[in-house]
Amino acid sequence: MTIAWGRICCSAPPHLTISIRKAAHTYAALMYRKCYTVSVPSLKYLRETDYFGMASDKDVDKFSVSRLTATRSEIIDTPYVDEFPMIFDFEVKSIVEIGGHVQFIGEIKGIKVDEDVLNEKGLPIIDKVNSFIYAPTTREYWSLKDIVGKGFSSGRVFMK
Amino acid sequence: MTIAWGRICCSAPPHLTISIRKAAHTYAALMYRKCYTVSVPSLKYLRETDYFGMASDKDVDKFSVSRLTATRSEIIDTPYVDEFPMIFDFEVKSIVEIGGHVQFIGEIKGIKVDEDVLNEKGLPIIDKVNSFIYAPTTREYWSLKDIVGKGFSSGRVFMK
Repeated sequence: MTIAWGRICCSAPPHLTISIRKAAHTYAALMYRKCYTVSVPSLKYLRETDYFGMASDKDVDKFSVSRLTATRSEIIDTPYVDEFPMIFDFEVKSIVEIGGHVQFIGEIKGIKVDEDVLNEKGLPIIDKVNSFIYAPTTREYWSLKDIVGKGFSSGRVFMK
Repeated sequence: MTIAWGRICCSAPPHLTISIRKAAHTYAALMYRKCYTVSVPSLKYLRETDYFGMASDKDVDKFSVSRLTATRSEIIDTPYVDEFPMIFDFEVKSIVEIGGHVQFIGEIKGIKVDEDVLNEKGLPIIDKVNSFIYAPTTREYWSLKDIVGKGFSSGRVFMK
């Protein structure tokens, strides 16, 4: 499924949260497996990504329809999207019922990134990953443009 | 403080999570007040935003140094950044200890948005808000470029 509400929530050890509704087909799978993969799409796969948020595997095989490839993770018992440049494997550590959504907090157990999107330090080059941002209120996907500043650096002008 | 790990985590009722380290000066304030405001910066204030993540109010008055204005929320007992275009007020509903970070889950109690960044439906126009994205691994701030697709629409090509 496509996740709108997800984000890293702890640096060390690295954890990421996803929130999904109980009605989602994925919810039962998550409660059963207690693990999940997150596959980060590149812009090339925007239509497929949107489709994965519209259709349900209750009704149709989304991988088959979109011609994406489901590959079994080597680390946990879940599939990932083979064509996407960055894949993360998670084990569920906590489940928090909030309101309409249930939040799953997962610890990273594996990372798989296409070598051609990494820099010499092994870190992802954002414009090579070439992913996109979702603005839920207006239902728009946005691309990224330029580096406009550096963390822990641009603010130095205010340090004495 | 500047928050790297934060995200909406429930649509209805709307909740947003922030994760902070116990060592952060803000942690004690959060535990005491059990509420927080989130102020979304525009690109114009990138240097100030970065600075708020570098310095600590243990040592210096960050509002005074950066010449930003701390205004008291009308809804909860916390300050927000008056110059920033979008402000949200939250009451803490859950606290989850994860690892190095503690996650606070807050319910939205108030929203204050500059009128000139809203469309005719009262929704934020992303390029008028003109905020930016943080890529923590490479410590880069990125601007947004273009609308590259529409949610629940771009994927229709795969629907039968």
